Amino acid sequence: MTDTLFNGLAIGDRTITGRFTVTPALSLEFARLYDPQPMHLDDEAGRASFFGELVASGWQTMAITMRLVVEARMLAGAPLIGLALDQARFLRPVKPGDELRVETEILAMTPSRARPDRGTVQIKVVTFNQKDMPVLEQLWTMLVLAAPATAA
Amino acid sequence: MTDTLFNGLAIGDRTITGRFTVTPALSLEFARLYDPQPMHLDDEAGRASFFGELVASGWQTMAITMRLVVEARMLAGAPLIGLALDQARFLRPVKPGDELRVETEILAMTPSRARPDRGTVQIKVVTFNQKDMPVLEQLWTMLVLAAPATAA
Repeated sequence: MTDTLFNGLAIGDRTITGRFTVTPALSLEFARLYDPQPMHLDDEAGRASFFGELVASGWQTMAITMRLVVEARMLAGAPLIGLALDQARFLRPVKPGDELRVETEILAMTPSRARPDRGTVQIKVVTFNQKDMPVLEQLWTMLVLAAPATAA
Repeated sequence: MTDTLFNGLAIGDRTITGRFTVTPALSLEFARLYDPQPMHLDDEAGRASFFGELVASGWQTMAITMRLVVEARMLAGAPLIGLALDQARFLRPVKPGDELRVETEILAMTPSRARPDRGTVQIKVVTFNQKDMPVLEQLWTMLVLAAPATAA
């Protein structure tokens, strides 16, 4: 624990999440509301598109990534408060029916001078599909407060 | 039009979108599925949180930003295909009931050598609330194909 900086976290800490299936129904529901482009909505339009098939919205991949890290209690149960997002790369399309999982690693930590129980962390976040191929990588900067007392 | 590079687009082109209200019901629905943290789900937990009130998920702000630029036919009706996202900064919380709008500007364009009708664009994307305060800024890199013939 000598390299623990705050909230019991340390550089190099990794989180491996569970899995989440992007069902065709969820993919359509998300696209209708947040990314209503034909390539996300309609099989035929998907086949005629750049992707050659129906694909899920990349923004849904981001949202599912968040769900998986929340469920995995990344950052030892501290609330996940995003300050910045950099170097996000959409590496491969996600297709309806794909199953996603996420791996994260803390790359850097900066304690608050005024409140040594909190600080910011930089986290590499990589989302994989069921073939273990990365579909999205990102660098998150988050504010870490102490974990709430109620978090078991 | 002398500085038009592809698909009728030019550096400096701006898009101003319509508006979208993050209703409390939509905020809750998104949080339950994609960002199930107490500060997004429950008034009491919101008040006890870092934010001091119930707030919407930042990932929903991103998703709504996409919807607004799709509706506004940013990039002259070409499909919006994201390659990368950089320099995203969550500047202010978005609260249930807030009304969002987006302004975008093309900062750079790189035509494809093989296919001069297509290329990549870098776009500054800023999301504002109903008080005209920026809540999120981002830099998008998108692949631009020619607009489909069916796009009116």
